[in-house]
Amino acid sequence: MTFSAAVSGASGYAGGEVLRILAGHPGIEIGAVGAHSNAGQRLGELQPHLHSLTDRVLVDTTVENLADHDVVFLALPHGASAAIAAQLPPETVVIDAGADHRLESAEDWDQFYGSAHAGTWPYGLPELIVDGEGTRQREQLRGATRIAVPGCYPTSALLALGPGFAAGLLEPEDVVIVAASGTSGAGRAVKPHLLGSEVMGSMTPYGVGGAHRHTPEIEQGLSRAAGERVRISFTPTLAPMPRGILTTATARVAEGVTAAQLREAWEGAYVAEQFVTVLPEGSWPATKSVAGSNHAQLQLALDPRAGRVVVTCVIDNLVKGTAGGAVQSMNLALGLPEDTGLNLQGVAP
Amino acid sequence: MTFSAAVSGASGYAGGEVLRILAGHPGIEIGAVGAHSNAGQRLGELQPHLHSLTDRVLVDTTVENLADHDVVFLALPHGASAAIAAQLPPETVVIDAGADHRLESAEDWDQFYGSAHAGTWPYGLPELIVDGEGTRQREQLRGATRIAVPGCYPTSALLALGPGFAAGLLEPEDVVIVAASGTSGAGRAVKPHLLGSEVMGSMTPYGVGGAHRHTPEIEQGLSRAAGERVRISFTPTLAPMPRGILTTATARVAEGVTAAQLREAWEGAYVAEQFVTVLPEGSWPATKSVAGSNHAQLQLALDPRAGRVVVTCVIDNLVKGTAGGAVQSMNLALGLPEDTGLNLQGVAP
Amino acid sequence: MTFSAAVSGASGYAGGEVLRILAGHPGIEIGAVGAHSNAGQRLGELQPHLHSLTDRVLVDTTVENLADHDVVFLALPHGASAAIAAQLPPETVVIDAGADHRLESAEDWDQFYGSAHAGTWPYGLPELIVDGEGTRQREQLRGATRIAVPGCYPTSALLALGPGFAAGLLEPEDVVIVAASGTSGAGRAVKPHLLGSEVMGSMTPYGVGGAHRHTPEIEQGLSRAAGERVRISFTPTLAPMPRGILTTATARVAEGVTAAQLREAWEGAYVAEQFVTVLPEGSWPATKSVAGSNHAQLQLALDPRAGRVVVTCVIDNLVKGTAGGAVQSMNLALGLPEDTGLNLQGVAP
Amino acid sequence: MTFSAAVSGASGYAGGEVLRILAGHPGIEIGAVGAHSNAGQRLGELQPHLHSLTDRVLVDTTVENLADHDVVFLALPHGASAAIAAQLPPETVVIDAGADHRLESAEDWDQFYGSAHAGTWPYGLPELIVDGEGTRQREQLRGATRIAVPGCYPTSALLALGPGFAAGLLEPEDVVIVAASGTSGAGRAVKPHLLGSEVMGSMTPYGVGGAHRHTPEIEQGLSRAAGERVRISFTPTLAPMPRGILTTATARVAEGVTAAQLREAWEGAYVAEQFVTVLPEGSWPATKSVAGSNHAQLQLALDPRAGRVVVTCVIDNLVKGTAGGAVQSMNLALGLPEDTGLNLQGVAP
Repeated sequence: MTFSAAVSGASGYAGGEVLRILAGHPGIEIGAVGAHSNAGQRLGELQPHLHSLTDRVLVDTTVENLADHDVVFLALPHGASAAIAAQLPPETVVIDAGADHRLESAEDWDQFYGSAHAGTWPYGLPELIVDGEGTRQREQLRGATRIAVPGCYPTSALLALGPGFAAGLLEPEDVVIVAASGTSGAGRAVKPHLLGSEVMGSMTPYGVGGAHRHTPEIEQGLSRAAGERVRISFTPTLAPMPRGILTTATARVAEGVTAAQLREAWEGAYVAEQFVTVLPEGSWPATKSVAGSNHAQLQLALDPRAGRVVVTCVIDNLVKGTAGGAVQSMNLALGLPEDTGLNLQGVAP
Repeated sequence: MTFSAAVSGASGYAGGEVLRILAGHPGIEIGAVGAHSNAGQRLGELQPHLHSLTDRVLVDTTVENLADHDVVFLALPHGASAAIAAQLPPETVVIDAGADHRLESAEDWDQFYGSAHAGTWPYGLPELIVDGEGTRQREQLRGATRIAVPGCYPTSALLALGPGFAAGLLEPEDVVIVAASGTSGAGRAVKPHLLGSEVMGSMTPYGVGGAHRHTPEIEQGLSRAAGERVRISFTPTLAPMPRGILTTATARVAEGVTAAQLREAWEGAYVAEQFVTVLPEGSWPATKSVAGSNHAQLQLALDPRAGRVVVTCVIDNLVKGTAGGAVQSMNLALGLPEDTGLNLQGVAP
Repeated sequence: MTFSAAVSGASGYAGGEVLRILAGHPGIEIGAVGAHSNAGQRLGELQPHLHSLTDRVLVDTTVENLADHDVVFLALPHGASAAIAAQLPPETVVIDAGADHRLESAEDWDQFYGSAHAGTWPYGLPELIVDGEGTRQREQLRGATRIAVPGCYPTSALLALGPGFAAGLLEPEDVVIVAASGTSGAGRAVKPHLLGSEVMGSMTPYGVGGAHRHTPEIEQGLSRAAGERVRISFTPTLAPMPRGILTTATARVAEGVTAAQLREAWEGAYVAEQFVTVLPEGSWPATKSVAGSNHAQLQLALDPRAGRVVVTCVIDNLVKGTAGGAVQSMNLALGLPEDTGLNLQGVAP
Repeated sequence: MTFSAAVSGASGYAGGEVLRILAGHPGIEIGAVGAHSNAGQRLGELQPHLHSLTDRVLVDTTVENLADHDVVFLALPHGASAAIAAQLPPETVVIDAGADHRLESAEDWDQFYGSAHAGTWPYGLPELIVDGEGTRQREQLRGATRIAVPGCYPTSALLALGPGFAAGLLEPEDVVIVAASGTSGAGRAVKPHLLGSEVMGSMTPYGVGGAHRHTPEIEQGLSRAAGERVRISFTPTLAPMPRGILTTATARVAEGVTAAQLREAWEGAYVAEQFVTVLPEGSWPATKSVAGSNHAQLQLALDPRAGRVVVTCVIDNLVKGTAGGAVQSMNLALGLPEDTGLNLQGVAP
């Protein structure tokens, strides 16, 4: 059985990546391919790497063009997706790669986005542990018709620290997360600081001091895993590479927690997860190992001097962090095997 | 008056950078240029960017070749510099860019380096505040004949957090430092993970969990500024760029500390320092802005949700982090103006 | 039906890429995975991006380990593959990614490689036009049991200029080819000039003056297409990127040849080829568009001032230039559809 | 004696580099710093690497603001500089980094720029040999009050091939030049294809088929050296690095010319030139060796199979290719030693 899927935002990086993955998905037929100012152009002009789709012509991102598909992917600026989603049939599986439906707290939404809260949809991070019983987020995604794809930073941060909070091994204060992202995370809009001349050979922080919009989203997920309010300090940085996120997350361990306990908690959390791997001791993750793939790789160490665990996690921001996570969630929504179309190796070197 | 200087380790990145800076230093005449396995080669074969020195021939790194200069720079593996330094005349100004003489604690040395402690030399970070009175480290460097150049990570971390600890605004526990370094920080030795094919497009952590040798050095400097024991969690990462360090340092602020107090402390600490700048609010530092120069640029923000200050600091690991700091210290030792030969703009883009 | 395949040189970049592609090939079961000094290690330690193969253990590259498979891929230094191939059963499909069996001229072999000529195997570039009738090289590959995979530079150069020579539109003298390759083309051996610190931000030529070993291989292919002796000036350069080749090839056009004739010749040559695309006029190829994929993208222009055609061609050196071309040839050898396992989009940005 | 200099276009890459060099020039005091849309901003906001000039405020690029200086640097789009230059006092030394006054042929100007020809100024490439007697271009620059700084590609191409044409060793047809430039060569204007995400890991050609505006400028210089009309095929490519040009230039050698003759001609041409070096045989130039410096490094080889010489030349496009060449020319115009303020080592790695 084949499902039809429409993809909006197809001229951007997230939309392009959704198309790249769907093009290799055996259960999906790609339907309408939507854009805004680029409507009317051949996809090949904008995404010349999508070899099998070069002759597709971009259509306007209208409800008319998107409806009448089994699945609709929205890779749009926040605000735009809620407006369109509201007009799509309830039985259509709508996968929103934007922020509109991620936050449960209207107050957080207001503080960080400053517009009306569009409501909350099931959160598309299947591996997330959502309670002390070890229940996974994927249970909420089976058969869902509305899914909010997590932000790229939250995906890596939640995969990094979730197991420790779910197991009660970490303290909820003084959690610090510093992440380095490739430039595609900033999207395809043309801004001076994203010029190649500025970016190459340089690293720079942004949204420092808790100002980044992914902050409350990370806190929401960790708090759910911990069963109590978790507060983080989150600093994103821009790295001179097109793709990839390296997240370094550290939290104080509870009194008496040992390195062995930590290792067991993380390995246990992911031993049955095909897309998340705790590397063997002594191996450290590199973003390149997951480039182009839906995998996360982690490593952790107890720092006995500081009394903290340090967890490092790499993902491809456009795959596991966006389009891959979106397709994985879609598979759950459609009742397909969760890894359909996602058995991608990393592309390295 | 002109002083003569010998430079060992001249085929490596640190030694090459010392030569680059000395070549433009009006008070220095470059004498012996030493190497190990590359002795006998023209410098131009190994450092073709040092246009004015291409015909210099590398000599063996022996006491005979290095002695008989006013200044000797040692850019050697740890262990090697202590052995040579011990045989140089006491009146020679010896600047050790290696680790041998940085740590005061023999116990820390033993734990992190595992060899005999060579003793402690004045620490070559002139701007470091070393007590509650605001005394700077430069006082110890004037007229000194033995100077230990700080590690590149410690330079940025101490510049980032020093003012807050000196002013009593920060708590000594749960300090977290995550830093991204360009690959030249790993030196010029050929190792598989430093191949361009591996490095480009990838970020990777290393020495996680407090294992990196710069950890006790950072703690030593911060503890001195704080007047009490400071413990850090330090995670270094390797970034796909040849030069530069971006350090993200965060600490819990003491009860009641305001953003204005923080800003005042940092700006006050550096207002008279020509090589360290706190950027105007709203500007974030980029490593490229200090590439090739002896400057550090900082920015800070209070994160009220997390109750922490986040300080980001960029330096060029090879200049302010190594060779520039070395020459700045040498100037103090020789009684020259501190910025002689160091008025270098950054090379951007 | 499933064929078994052994891959030697699996710890290198070419071997790793063969594995990446075979892992997604529906007709192949990966058997022995061979290495030299890395034998005994888990593949995950060396190729952590090959998620589905991490637990494979590398075996020694011996005839015993490689035999008993339907297909054997040799990704070995030149010289080594001929020795092993000679001992493999004649019915085994042996695909040599090395140089041993590419050149027909023993004299050329001797001049450029300086060892005994191992003989010539069918050349694994299916799209190459090999005579004035438009016969393609793929005819020689159907059912073949020994195949010599072309070098990465020759693949791009032959795809770039082949149509013009086959159509008699180009003059055989003063052909100039300048190509820029990503660093993976230089392999995974650890050499000082391939360090990330040296490579990033830098371009450098090598093998200038006709010294590169791919020179006679390119001349051989172009001469075959032209039906007369073609002489080239070939200059390879190393570019600061891990993958990709951009080849700029230019030749004098024959008297009276028009831009329209040129366009028609190139478009006609590739209109039925799924892995080679002449871009629409006005679009120029970027190596990133073919990263990770088996595609070549070309563009050409007549320079009326100079009386020359300029053809630019991009490929991924590790895919179409090595492993993808190898698998495409294998498909022909085994009687499988030529694109089996090769419908890969590019991974961009 | 100190001269005052105004710099327009100071928010761009070329203007910023002029400032970087002038800031270290002992004979220049920097006066007005002009911009267009950025007028009124602090220089530190736009060029945070120019540490000694951060508090300068950008003024409008008007004749009033620029006049009343001994020297005026124009780093403006073509067209704009001619208009301003016409209104500056005749005794003011005007250095135009733009294209307006480079071409002698009004016909070429019309064909490649399509606007009115503003006339021709002395060409700011001091080392260029302009006749069979070996006369250098610098003779025209001494005491000049109007100077046209060469384009970055022409600088490298003319340095590469000039000696051979001046010595009568090369044939004037079938000259082929392929060059790779860092992205700063495309300026600081924000365009989609210059985004870091697009540029990193990718190479792409542009202006192919003789369409690039530097084509007639290169032909003009080579023809002058040769004393006869030289025709070139020129293809520029964009490389994933912020700075640097690698030019590969190849021409057919005249009958009977030997490798020794070639070497002698090139070495002889540059032996007395401090900014241009022919590397020792066996060394190939890397753009990084000249990053930040005013040097060009060359290497050449005779390709006996092809009957051609291949010359590779590296420069920093922003220094020797623009701002450094501009200051070098200014020194000649002002009667200062030609290398004043230009004794810059390369910044590597």
